[in-house]
Amino acid sequence: MSAPAPLSAPLTAAPTKVAVLGAGSMGTTFAMVLADAGCDVTLWGRDAAVLDAVDRTHRNEKYLPGVQLPAMHGTTDPAVALQGASIVVVSVPSQVARATLASMKDLVEPDAVVVSLMKGVELGTDKRMSQVIAEVLDLPDERVAIVSGPNLAPEIAERQPTATVVASRSEATAQRVAAACWTGYFRPYTNTDVVGVELCGAVKNIIALAAGMAQGRGFGWNTIATLITRGLVEITRLGLALGADAATFSGLAGMGDLTATCASPLSRNHRLGKHFGEGLTLEEAIAATGGTAEGVKSSQSVLELARAHDVEMPITAGVVDVLAGKLPLSELAATLLARPQKSEVAG
Amino acid sequence: MSAPAPLSAPLTAAPTKVAVLGAGSMGTTFAMVLADAGCDVTLWGRDAAVLDAVDRTHRNEKYLPGVQLPAMHGTTDPAVALQGASIVVVSVPSQVARATLASMKDLVEPDAVVVSLMKGVELGTDKRMSQVIAEVLDLPDERVAIVSGPNLAPEIAERQPTATVVASRSEATAQRVAAACWTGYFRPYTNTDVVGVELCGAVKNIIALAAGMAQGRGFGWNTIATLITRGLVEITRLGLALGADAATFSGLAGMGDLTATCASPLSRNHRLGKHFGEGLTLEEAIAATGGTAEGVKSSQSVLELARAHDVEMPITAGVVDVLAGKLPLSELAATLLARPQKSEVAG
Repeated sequence: MSAPAPLSAPLTAAPTKVAVLGAGSMGTTFAMVLADAGCDVTLWGRDAAVLDAVDRTHRNEKYLPGVQLPAMHGTTDPAVALQGASIVVVSVPSQVARATLASMKDLVEPDAVVVSLMKGVELGTDKRMSQVIAEVLDLPDERVAIVSGPNLAPEIAERQPTATVVASRSEATAQRVAAACWTGYFRPYTNTDVVGVELCGAVKNIIALAAGMAQGRGFGWNTIATLITRGLVEITRLGLALGADAATFSGLAGMGDLTATCASPLSRNHRLGKHFGEGLTLEEAIAATGGTAEGVKSSQSVLELARAHDVEMPITAGVVDVLAGKLPLSELAATLLARPQKSEVAG
Repeated sequence: MSAPAPLSAPLTAAPTKVAVLGAGSMGTTFAMVLADAGCDVTLWGRDAAVLDAVDRTHRNEKYLPGVQLPAMHGTTDPAVALQGASIVVVSVPSQVARATLASMKDLVEPDAVVVSLMKGVELGTDKRMSQVIAEVLDLPDERVAIVSGPNLAPEIAERQPTATVVASRSEATAQRVAAACWTGYFRPYTNTDVVGVELCGAVKNIIALAAGMAQGRGFGWNTIATLITRGLVEITRLGLALGADAATFSGLAGMGDLTATCASPLSRNHRLGKHFGEGLTLEEAIAATGGTAEGVKSSQSVLELARAHDVEMPITAGVVDVLAGKLPLSELAATLLARPQKSEVAG
């Protein structure tokens, strides 16, 4: 119960040099956190106009409108971003992570730690993002970390109080990354359960679709809180089958991120589910959301993974059936509630 | 992982006779659920006009405006309500439970199960409501149960999909009560951890005050999800010290009810916290909420309980200090986030 001694703050003598790959909303926001924490940050992306503005005026009006960033560099040249960077943060779309990193492999410093902010699963291989990073950059576990938690980018960008989890198989690596991003408004906790933290980040999106659907149908917090609670039960069940640590699921990357994602209209999965719940077709809902959402892509593969491990995931199965048009949305709640009365714990 | 066989539905030959004591929003709503589930329900209260309308027109415009109830009886005579009732549901204000039940002791049928919907702790004795019931009615554990979960009354009254926990030291008793209130929209799970379920119901109100305060200050879901997650950690810590079962806290009565209460403006504690967060004084916030909230009353005694068991509850301690004027609200978030960086699980 006693708290360990606080780590020293980032060294003031020589600021940690960090490269952030991906200048979207989350990448830019995390670059802001790192710079606020005292790091020397270079943001890399493909859009020259965006990166030029980041470099010159410290603003990214395309992905983080209205936010004045702290001093940082912006570049479209990966060699500039990666040179001397002891921490490399990756925040590109999940499905292009492999190709992006492969093209930069020789530029990553030999002792750099590579950190994923990505939440998806690679289609085709079903690999988690930390696995893709380790594989394509040929890194040992202790040089890979992930950051995940209740971290809606627009709220962090307003410097609202936020907590997160930095996970690495190596506690020392997790602590090193945590020290680099710890500010007055952003508080990292460390965890060594990479599988659990990454699984939470992927499966939460499916539950958020269900929560959005419920809200779209006019249901309130009783229903959504139940979906969150029972959703976490099924995520945990899958995680335990895959060797994750149960404590991760009740933590910030599990319950915390799931709650924020299911509750907030800032979540893309929540919004898409809500449009669908309001009566749009899946295609119309995707269009209204401005593109698809991770949960739509990953629900089928998560369900297959669950079945392969003989794990019951009734909410995920219901979402898959509803999205496939096999179950009317009006019957989803009834189907879930009609399951046999039983002990909550055994469920 | 296999589901137990479903219980039989309530007997159709002879409907279970149930008395519901307390015709406020929650009592009336639960009477509706019981009647929908096929029970023969009599609602008791002190307000003759309210109970007369319940009896004649099946409406309670004072506490559940606009809702058409199913057929049920209404009375101000406890003898009428309790005669023949094999289940007695108690939903009166926590601080008058002892006196109310004492006056009815001789009217309760000798084999009746008494069920608490109440969430408070008795001031002066610090006793949980199930303890007050057992003590004043001189009942053994197997004749006492409680119902708790993400159960905002106005949403149940709209027959929105809702799940709950029926807890009793006796699993058979919990199943009996669960069978009596199981409908297409209301799904009970059973639990034998009475201490844990009742503790969750009381302490969640303190965390909901903190969540309301955060929202009142303009913070979003990152902050609220973190408060919910870390709040559940400290509730769980206290529960384990008091002998509760860890699984209860990640279930519907723990995480589920905490989430609904922290998220919904229908929660009185959330509303009071929000008014306070918007800059009102405590007195003004209480007035704006239309009276005080359970969390204000119970926060100090919960903190004393925690200290007596050497349990760290930083959010509860922060709420107590803020309410007492010892800590500016603007510093609460900073105080919580500034705690030493550490492993999430150890925290």
